[in-house]
Amino acid sequence: MSEHVWSVLLAGGVGSRFWPVSRALRPKQLLDLFGEGPMLRATLERVLPLAPAERTIVVTSQTLAPAIRALLPEVPAHQILAEPSGKNTAPAIAWAAKLALAADPEARLMVLPSDHHIADVSGFRATAAAALALTDSHLVTIGIVPTHPETGYGYLQRGAPLTPGATAYAVRAFVEKPDLATAATYLAGGEHLWNAGMFFMAAALFMAELQVHRPTLATRIVAARDILDVWAELESVSIDYAVMERSTRIATLPGAFGWSDVGSWRSLYDHRGDAASFHMGDVIELDGSGNVLFSEGGLVATVGVSDLVVVHTPDATFVCPRESAQRAREVVQLLEFRGRKELL
Amino acid sequence: MSEHVWSVLLAGGVGSRFWPVSRALRPKQLLDLFGEGPMLRATLERVLPLAPAERTIVVTSQTLAPAIRALLPEVPAHQILAEPSGKNTAPAIAWAAKLALAADPEARLMVLPSDHHIADVSGFRATAAAALALTDSHLVTIGIVPTHPETGYGYLQRGAPLTPGATAYAVRAFVEKPDLATAATYLAGGEHLWNAGMFFMAAALFMAELQVHRPTLATRIVAARDILDVWAELESVSIDYAVMERSTRIATLPGAFGWSDVGSWRSLYDHRGDAASFHMGDVIELDGSGNVLFSEGGLVATVGVSDLVVVHTPDATFVCPRESAQRAREVVQLLEFRGRKELL
Repeated sequence: MSEHVWSVLLAGGVGSRFWPVSRALRPKQLLDLFGEGPMLRATLERVLPLAPAERTIVVTSQTLAPAIRALLPEVPAHQILAEPSGKNTAPAIAWAAKLALAADPEARLMVLPSDHHIADVSGFRATAAAALALTDSHLVTIGIVPTHPETGYGYLQRGAPLTPGATAYAVRAFVEKPDLATAATYLAGGEHLWNAGMFFMAAALFMAELQVHRPTLATRIVAARDILDVWAELESVSIDYAVMERSTRIATLPGAFGWSDVGSWRSLYDHRGDAASFHMGDVIELDGSGNVLFSEGGLVATVGVSDLVVVHTPDATFVCPRESAQRAREVVQLLEFRGRKELL
Repeated sequence: MSEHVWSVLLAGGVGSRFWPVSRALRPKQLLDLFGEGPMLRATLERVLPLAPAERTIVVTSQTLAPAIRALLPEVPAHQILAEPSGKNTAPAIAWAAKLALAADPEARLMVLPSDHHIADVSGFRATAAAALALTDSHLVTIGIVPTHPETGYGYLQRGAPLTPGATAYAVRAFVEKPDLATAATYLAGGEHLWNAGMFFMAAALFMAELQVHRPTLATRIVAARDILDVWAELESVSIDYAVMERSTRIATLPGAFGWSDVGSWRSLYDHRGDAASFHMGDVIELDGSGNVLFSEGGLVATVGVSDLVVVHTPDATFVCPRESAQRAREVVQLLEFRGRKELL
């Protein structure tokens, strides 16, 4: 089986929530937010023991493809797929599936976002191996066991075990981001898992299910001599909406390996689990706690402030309360409105 | 009289309270904190109607002299006096007095710090002219009429009017920085004025008083062929301690012209007198008030924070509560301790 395993790394995200460090040509997946190297590079290295570089496919945008080829030189250049425009995840994954199938009709795909953080890498690898073992019969999504009543994620509600006593489950429902009270009942109930957007599946089964549930999309991709010829015509749709929420072949495997989607500056603080401040880069903090202090190309110095985000880059500084760190997007929107391209 | 008036601009300050904008080679007097040009340049232009550039003397350090010559090209280069080491104000002013006396035995000096802000320039000029009119008989210091119970300044307690009905007064006492309760009684009492460090005096009378109260210092300066030959031997002492607090020829003229010593980032907010934030440079502020947001060579963007100081320079960002802005010095001290010369 293992020689059939392919990685499909989704790296097309634009992302504005890590402004001013993230920019149009350097979105979140290219940033080194944790001192572990760029997140896309860390994602590749996390799965190399399961699928070597020659069986790695990266889907990204034409804009980012040159930087990604430079960042991942061991990945064959023709396997770094450059989308002319964003079409959400279903076309991206189908393109990768078609490429893998051409090389190996038995190909198994590990479809992974490239901008998440995983603290327990060996735990992740064990879960991924277990998920791959289910791909003969199922499209498998990993469901993260919740650690707190998170309102920022979608959830999976698990159903019955696939077989009596199995650790993988059918999926009863895909659930939108809940309010806090609902999230608390999910956490207490034990049936709900975070939808982390990681999919393990046989390429052929995925394409068959896509053919059932999105026949026009599947047919256009399969029939095209060059997918770029038909790209503009393809429906923009997520794999969740196109296939996962409709197929009867879905399974979820619960996983617990310190996962975070790293949704905002705040998450750099949250994922550590203690009250001390998060520091990255050249930082001086006097009399403060609970801060996210991030410096690139210079020094951040704070005195007597707490629970703030302070981010320094040579051409821009961003400051906000840690709990509203996602509002970095509002600054980006204003800069876009004002045409301040040099800061985007 | 007016042809005898000389400006003596004291520009030797090092200053660390405006870090990271102020640096060793660019202290506060060289900064443009108000969008009016560098403060030293604004000081010169404020008094040019009273004393032309050819009767302007600037006392600074050897380190800063090149930058100051470039900033004030109309001031004769030999009148920009470069101290080999800091000796406080008395030697600096005596050096300037000796130079002015060599050109004009009747010289009258306007001794002015170069890093203060004055909102009402014509009001200042009127007060300065009135002070100069008293210099036949007195060493005159302007006393700023307090507008609030300030604890950061020293005070002058005025005595009797120089003549019945006069607007200038004898000085009863020089008073150290008070606590808040004492400052409130000063404000209510009406006899106390802020000691702004601005002196108007005949150069000859100043030197005569220095001879009385600090004979060794005065003799060394007068006797030296080149003052640099004796500089290392000179006592380091302020004009206040050496002369003003001892002479019987002191007078104070109350002034009210929107003066601030610009002691910290906070003062940029205070001197404006309303609750809105102070902005300088490229700034975006969403949902905030009472901030001091200062940007040089980049953008400062804040969301949802109030009553903070946020200062961006390309190689350093500083953040602290507005009310403790003077703690920028603590960062500078730490950087000195760590030998981070590139940031000093």
